[in-house]
Amino acid sequence: MSDIHENDILSKIIYPDDLRKLSPAQLEQICGELRQFIIDELSSNPGHFASSLGVVELTVALHYVFNTPYDRIVWDVGHQAYAHKILTGRREQFHTNRKFKGLSGFPTPAESEYDTFSAGHASNSISAALGMAVASALNKDEKNRHVVAVIGDAAIGGGLAFEGLNNASSNPNNLLIILNDNNMAIDHNVGGLNQYLVNITTSRSYNKIRYNLYKAFYKANLINEDIRGAILRFNNSLKSLITRQQNIFDGLDVRYFGPVDGHDVESLVRILHDIKDMKGPKILHIRTVKGKGFKPAEESATIWHAPGKFNKITGERFLPSSEGQPPLFQDVFGHTLVELARQNPKIVGITPAMPTGCSMTYMMKEFPDRSFDVGIAEEHAVTFSGGLAKEGMVPFCNIYSSFMQRAYDQVIHDVALQKLHVIFCLDRAGLVGEDGPTHHGVFDLSYFRAIPNMTVAAPINEHWLRKLMYTAQAENHGPFMIRYPRGKGSLSDWECPFESVEIGKGYPLKNGTDIAVLSLGPIGNNVAEAIREAEKKGISIAHYDMVFLKPLDEELLHDVMKRFNRIVTVEDGALKGGFGSAVLEFMADNGYSPQIRRIGIPDRFIEHGTINQLHQVCEMDVDSIYRTLTSEW
Amino acid sequence: MSDIHENDILSKIIYPDDLRKLSPAQLEQICGELRQFIIDELSSNPGHFASSLGVVELTVALHYVFNTPYDRIVWDVGHQAYAHKILTGRREQFHTNRKFKGLSGFPTPAESEYDTFSAGHASNSISAALGMAVASALNKDEKNRHVVAVIGDAAIGGGLAFEGLNNASSNPNNLLIILNDNNMAIDHNVGGLNQYLVNITTSRSYNKIRYNLYKAFYKANLINEDIRGAILRFNNSLKSLITRQQNIFDGLDVRYFGPVDGHDVESLVRILHDIKDMKGPKILHIRTVKGKGFKPAEESATIWHAPGKFNKITGERFLPSSEGQPPLFQDVFGHTLVELARQNPKIVGITPAMPTGCSMTYMMKEFPDRSFDVGIAEEHAVTFSGGLAKEGMVPFCNIYSSFMQRAYDQVIHDVALQKLHVIFCLDRAGLVGEDGPTHHGVFDLSYFRAIPNMTVAAPINEHWLRKLMYTAQAENHGPFMIRYPRGKGSLSDWECPFESVEIGKGYPLKNGTDIAVLSLGPIGNNVAEAIREAEKKGISIAHYDMVFLKPLDEELLHDVMKRFNRIVTVEDGALKGGFGSAVLEFMADNGYSPQIRRIGIPDRFIEHGTINQLHQVCEMDVDSIYRTLTSEW
Repeated sequence: MSDIHENDILSKIIYPDDLRKLSPAQLEQICGELRQFIIDELSSNPGHFASSLGVVELTVALHYVFNTPYDRIVWDVGHQAYAHKILTGRREQFHTNRKFKGLSGFPTPAESEYDTFSAGHASNSISAALGMAVASALNKDEKNRHVVAVIGDAAIGGGLAFEGLNNASSNPNNLLIILNDNNMAIDHNVGGLNQYLVNITTSRSYNKIRYNLYKAFYKANLINEDIRGAILRFNNSLKSLITRQQNIFDGLDVRYFGPVDGHDVESLVRILHDIKDMKGPKILHIRTVKGKGFKPAEESATIWHAPGKFNKITGERFLPSSEGQPPLFQDVFGHTLVELARQNPKIVGITPAMPTGCSMTYMMKEFPDRSFDVGIAEEHAVTFSGGLAKEGMVPFCNIYSSFMQRAYDQVIHDVALQKLHVIFCLDRAGLVGEDGPTHHGVFDLSYFRAIPNMTVAAPINEHWLRKLMYTAQAENHGPFMIRYPRGKGSLSDWECPFESVEIGKGYPLKNGTDIAVLSLGPIGNNVAEAIREAEKKGISIAHYDMVFLKPLDEELLHDVMKRFNRIVTVEDGALKGGFGSAVLEFMADNGYSPQIRRIGIPDRFIEHGTINQLHQVCEMDVDSIYRTLTSEW
Repeated sequence: MSDIHENDILSKIIYPDDLRKLSPAQLEQICGELRQFIIDELSSNPGHFASSLGVVELTVALHYVFNTPYDRIVWDVGHQAYAHKILTGRREQFHTNRKFKGLSGFPTPAESEYDTFSAGHASNSISAALGMAVASALNKDEKNRHVVAVIGDAAIGGGLAFEGLNNASSNPNNLLIILNDNNMAIDHNVGGLNQYLVNITTSRSYNKIRYNLYKAFYKANLINEDIRGAILRFNNSLKSLITRQQNIFDGLDVRYFGPVDGHDVESLVRILHDIKDMKGPKILHIRTVKGKGFKPAEESATIWHAPGKFNKITGERFLPSSEGQPPLFQDVFGHTLVELARQNPKIVGITPAMPTGCSMTYMMKEFPDRSFDVGIAEEHAVTFSGGLAKEGMVPFCNIYSSFMQRAYDQVIHDVALQKLHVIFCLDRAGLVGEDGPTHHGVFDLSYFRAIPNMTVAAPINEHWLRKLMYTAQAENHGPFMIRYPRGKGSLSDWECPFESVEIGKGYPLKNGTDIAVLSLGPIGNNVAEAIREAEKKGISIAHYDMVFLKPLDEELLHDVMKRFNRIVTVEDGALKGGFGSAVLEFMADNGYSPQIRRIGIPDRFIEHGTINQLHQVCEMDVDSIYRTLTSEW
């Protein structure tokens, strides 16, 4: 809990109803208190920081003007919704944010009626909110419901957001879209649309004239609540006139207002009040600063996206010492990619807006011409990689496993069908921990396994990640998927020399006679530990690292099936259709009938918590695996 | 083969090199001959008609100006590429178009080096071509290669196309995008962008001034090849000035030219010549007419999208008599939806650009306010349905199985995670026949099975489609997927009364003692026939229609596993991770070990042909199933 603010206003606000009792003049104070509360909490309980600070004023203004929860606010991505959570009945629980059984780090309808739609994957807010707005327009009892989507300037570049925007004017609805423009996704924003937004807001002549006109109207007392709407519309026309451009949003038949200062809460309240009852879809473009109000975060928003613990006065970050620790899989990927790119001039790197998260930053620094951050655009990332591969380049396309779901069709249609030499590195595969169900990368083994022509592999450790990356680029094996988890590996001397591995070849980690365990990926390290414990009870257990889900090592499986009647499969992925299922298919197709126990993710969405807590939930931790190995067969 | 044109030019053109030997003045004639060739061929050998006629001049101009195949043309969707195929070495084989072992109906790199990238799913051309253009820019030996993407006004509304367009200006490349604007996808086009294109082209003052200026320049002999580029740029500026708008494409930092008449081949050649060597990404907007040159098709482009056989003189279509035949699953869906919508006011219908194909047209006619054709936007269709469901509507979201791959993440993240009551009707599930590998809907059982909270069902016939649709809407079971194939069902009296079925309940079709066959979906009718034959050999075979892939009928499976040691599973979907795999998982988890044979789609992309031919390829036809049943166990 926060230790400050004895005489504050914030402590009296449990729900937005309480907020709405304040006068407009008090809102600036509440924003200050809210911001300080977030800084205090986040300094000791890490989470998404900079983006939450950036929307404090917007959040207060929205809940002040709109009648939430009857009116709907749909947050895009949702990691910026901390102020929203704090103002909607969850201040007291906020210290449990992102903790096991605590608050989710993202808006979650199951958690609160104020959280209207699931968030986590970017760019869905416009479509979801449009559905809500159209539903309200269809329902005669709900025609006065307001629906607001809040989307950032990076997320609006995603294809889904464009599809929603393009469709917004097709049906009667009063949707309001807030474009929260901070000129920065997690990493620096890219793309033509972003440049366009910069142009809009830096059109000096326009902004200057607008400001002067506004001021003049104000002084002359010509502005009151009734005519504010007209003024805004006038503003808009003025803008078209002066900049000689029809706005891109106007082009899509969505009325455009802005840009306005997203940190002036009283002004935001006035503008929202003005436009909220205007008919038809509309977009309000606000300018905000990521990390607003905390100097170090304002200056380095990427670092302060999720900074970990820090000193809330000095801004010093408390980074856990990594000395002697194994490296992050991410860094092994990043450094290895650079090494390979030095040797193979055909290699290019592609990431959809996650160069820092996946460590493609190293490649971007050394080979800027051969590295492509395409923005939040997973579909494009894959098809673009397909085009590059078609002309002989060797793309390493790095996408988080759960975001790869966005590009499933592109992998099938634009890459696998043509057997193109694209290497997919699926970062954050398996359970990811605190980010929870929207971010767990647990379906990829199942959905990739069904695709013809794919090679699918999972390294057990850093050395194997390097070997697989080397192998994947050395020869054209068609599409080649390598999945690895978030976080640390298990080896501190990760810089092994490159060597090729045989495609579809597993290998024994340990001999044994009673039970054979087949594992895929780093979860094999849990298995190894569990086996050590289990053997103390006198059981003899063989352990195989399969390395490849596809093609399966059939020679190894024949050998195992002939020698063992008790087999355990272990994977950090969905049990339905995954690795264990592949083993069962092999078994049935080849007439074997051993007893098989499968360990993996059960058929439900897994909550958030530490990876170890979640492994326990899924019975994939060392103790659970030990119990499976030692229980009665 | 065509029976006309003794003294034509077309017969002398084998490859584009031959075309490029003609004078510009001869191009109009070649277009006429090409168009007639297509009309002749298509009248007796059905295929995609109207869109191919619309791009005859464009196709000739592109191959005339660009040095194909060194220069790359990427056709979006690709069903308009018949003229392209005919001009690139495939005229003599064109009579095999869409036939088993014949030419593919879509550009297919495996078929010809002129087909540069796989096509079939809309909106991928810009991303793919951008990848090719960037690869060429990176390769010092290929810097002069031109890459052209040809995309329609409907496909450009897809999210992937926007992502590509938004990214086009981020890296050095000389990509040329041709926007083929015929104001018509398969069905009528929708969305703000479409309206925008109409506005662009109907800006009368602009077009008039432009035309007059052009004419004046021409008359004064002021236009020659050298200054044409300058004129075009001037044109563009002129346009901005007069219409007072910055173009939406200029907004994305892609230079815009147009609109120009896409049926004036000589003019197209001049313009393409002018802009082809301009640096940077650019878009040329051409206006064409779907079905151009064949009156009936010009007048009803939707009907003539794929008209079947017809009289090439009168335009009379030869429709196979459907009297006494079972109805199309599509029509059963369409009529049933209307019946249900009459009873349940919460029901709404959503389709991404396929109202005619999936027969949602009936609903659109009777309930226009409750039917939503969202354009080519599968991702949006699903998330929009999620938003509607969140506010209590009951959406029937109809998407072809292979296109649903585009919305996989949205099903997981925006629907299943929240257990929203969305009913997904997957049309064209299973092998679709002549459209081939890009359109076969064979992965859905595998990719949907991995998603928690999903109900997944497949009706064996029209009655079960109606029962499942009724059941899905009657109560909130969360996301509910119903898959059914393209084409006719098996019952002619399809209009059964509505009744609820129990979720997750299969049922016996036939008793037996030696073998049990478990089937899912209409392939069960092949199974029934095969069983009738097989039993003539004295084998007694039980047959169960499982109806539900998820949840599985465990009670039924326990019963079967206890009584049978020989089990066959049959599904019209990928064997990897599908229905048979689900049965294997049940078996392993419950300690059964019967012999199991699985019939379904093997792990490779299946070619095109009639559905029966492809069933033979996959050993799912009656004879093959018979052989599996009667062969040695």
